[in-house]
Amino acid sequence: MTLKNTMTGNYLLREDNDSVATIIMDTPERRNALSSQMMEALHAELEAIATDRTIHAVILAANGPVFCAGHDLKELKTISHCDGHAALFAQCSDLMVRIVTLPQPVIARVHGMATAAGCQLVASCDLAVATQSARFATPGVNIGLFCSTPMVALSRNIGRKHAMRMLLTGDPITADQAWQMGLISDVVADDMLENVTQELAEKIAAKSASTVKIGKEAFYRQIEMPLNAAYDYASSVMTANMQTTDAGEGIGAFVEKRPPTWRHE
Amino acid sequence: MTLKNTMTGNYLLREDNDSVATIIMDTPERRNALSSQMMEALHAELEAIATDRTIHAVILAANGPVFCAGHDLKELKTISHCDGHAALFAQCSDLMVRIVTLPQPVIARVHGMATAAGCQLVASCDLAVATQSARFATPGVNIGLFCSTPMVALSRNIGRKHAMRMLLTGDPITADQAWQMGLISDVVADDMLENVTQELAEKIAAKSASTVKIGKEAFYRQIEMPLNAAYDYASSVMTANMQTTDAGEGIGAFVEKRPPTWRHE
Amino acid sequence: MTLKNTMTGNYLLREDNDSVATIIMDTPERRNALSSQMMEALHAELEAIATDRTIHAVILAANGPVFCAGHDLKELKTISHCDGHAALFAQCSDLMVRIVTLPQPVIARVHGMATAAGCQLVASCDLAVATQSARFATPGVNIGLFCSTPMVALSRNIGRKHAMRMLLTGDPITADQAWQMGLISDVVADDMLENVTQELAEKIAAKSASTVKIGKEAFYRQIEMPLNAAYDYASSVMTANMQTTDAGEGIGAFVEKRPPTWRHE
Repeated sequence: MTLKNTMTGNYLLREDNDSVATIIMDTPERRNALSSQMMEALHAELEAIATDRTIHAVILAANGPVFCAGHDLKELKTISHCDGHAALFAQCSDLMVRIVTLPQPVIARVHGMATAAGCQLVASCDLAVATQSARFATPGVNIGLFCSTPMVALSRNIGRKHAMRMLLTGDPITADQAWQMGLISDVVADDMLENVTQELAEKIAAKSASTVKIGKEAFYRQIEMPLNAAYDYASSVMTANMQTTDAGEGIGAFVEKRPPTWRHE
Repeated sequence: MTLKNTMTGNYLLREDNDSVATIIMDTPERRNALSSQMMEALHAELEAIATDRTIHAVILAANGPVFCAGHDLKELKTISHCDGHAALFAQCSDLMVRIVTLPQPVIARVHGMATAAGCQLVASCDLAVATQSARFATPGVNIGLFCSTPMVALSRNIGRKHAMRMLLTGDPITADQAWQMGLISDVVADDMLENVTQELAEKIAAKSASTVKIGKEAFYRQIEMPLNAAYDYASSVMTANMQTTDAGEGIGAFVEKRPPTWRHE
Repeated sequence: MTLKNTMTGNYLLREDNDSVATIIMDTPERRNALSSQMMEALHAELEAIATDRTIHAVILAANGPVFCAGHDLKELKTISHCDGHAALFAQCSDLMVRIVTLPQPVIARVHGMATAAGCQLVASCDLAVATQSARFATPGVNIGLFCSTPMVALSRNIGRKHAMRMLLTGDPITADQAWQMGLISDVVADDMLENVTQELAEKIAAKSASTVKIGKEAFYRQIEMPLNAAYDYASSVMTANMQTTDAGEGIGAFVEKRPPTWRHE
């Protein structure tokens, strides 16, 4: 096992554990707010990971009692011109889309509160493991600023009525409710969060990275297509997937009842 | 508190409680059927509310044992020409879309049965609070008239398999199932319905009305867009929202740890 | 009651029970794999049913311990050219779409494991009844071949996080989870599967077949449209439905409090 810890600027920690990279938001005193610097740091880290073939899965975690409180309101307030706000919201949307377009799966590892753009961060990840005591909210409405960009990710994860209730009231939901609604993929006991998330990441990291990359990209593309177009597209993806070395190896190994050895091309 | 009760024609009652308007379908002997007159009365009431800046949230409720039984079948039967049917179904769809496009959030307050277009009414509201004993069904298939317009709203609230089961069998689902599936946002004990719904409406009515209006409109627009377009649109909405007086006040109040005073512009 | 049992080649059994046709995949020793011959047999059976007005509902079932294990990997491996793979995946997608476009509702009757394209088969049916002990998985990722076409159907039935978890880990979900997520419409005790599925099919088969056909087709068409277009389309469908003999009969019977007699036109 290779364990590598890095300080990446003043905003993030990074822990690599073999092929699993864990990015840890590390400004607990500011509740890991998504200031433009924090977003820049996250984006840079994801960019680096995107082309790093040794990394097969990413965990997005946080230090301190709060997972992420969303935008930095003091920063928002100091910006005097709408161009500045537009740039900040565009930066935030780019960050969320970068998670979706990252070749590797990204797993949110959530404890405490995930609010506003922090909730959006969870919704934007491919998977999300949360502690039983974690809470999720989109409370922008309470400060006169509706969670309009967070709802893009939220409403693509959970049903309309549940999303609207969160958006209109600002009230938090529990982790169990979040699982039922579809916002997260796993709920675990509070003291199991790190272990379960690491195991999930390692399980995925042990698959063929090229196969996972093909599948993740296809997932988000096909989901926006009408049924027939989605099938045409997915069939072509699967045909191309079949021609890869890893598919040949995987099917061969399965038929021969032996473990596969991925080329990780 | 300002309480104002009005008889609006022979179909509806209206109770205003400060900035919360409650519209009560009041033809219990006809199970609050959506006759063309009932739909006209509802539409007119919503039109009046749409431009009434003193109203910040709407409750849609019903008198009698049945919430709403859908179209008035006797009326449907007396119409002899397909143009008449087309006009009636168009009127119904317009009513449902009017709820979606209303600036204020609309909360269905449901007890008893909500069937066919009555179930569609619930699905079309932004939120829905129902008693534990409430039931929801789309039984048009039982009378040879598939619930084709109700399913437009239904299938945008709940999953395909669950929707298809309701549509193909006509069987009712319980309130607990409706919550799990996403058709309603809240389930309450039967004797708590009015209080809980009123509290929910007042909580939303206490937010900035302009912010809520911005958010509701954006919700239904972005949900029909591909991800990137949705983010571009939502970012522009959020930027515009940031320039409003209420966002300035809300963020200022939050940073200064005081309650905000909305302008309700 | 007319009961008719047929051997249809070496892949399927068919049992007709009045207006309910049950197609049984019958290669248990190959875990009912969707070889090109099995898919051809299923497709041919569906084609025959599509124009058979005596059949009002279809059950898709399986013999042996496994419902369906997806593609036949040995067959996939023997195909040496990508055109062959493309043809096989296209054949599979055509089969899935044929279920969706079949005039009659199709109910999956699931026990044991439904994996990969077998899970897709369940997701593609209009309804699905499963035993408590049934399991669902999309484990293609384990053999280097991501379940890209299965995810087209899967992701149109369940939420993104739940779908991604299945696709990225290959781990199975239980029948109870499948119901909660929306993949299946009914969960039953293991020894009740045949009875409950038959009753459900008979209930639907007793409705007006023309009405059910109108509704099923409209369901899948409207669900891909924006809200306003969906309402325009659904209103026109409902208007046409109102002009049918069965709607006249059904509404008349309802108003006169007598059972309807369908023409099954």
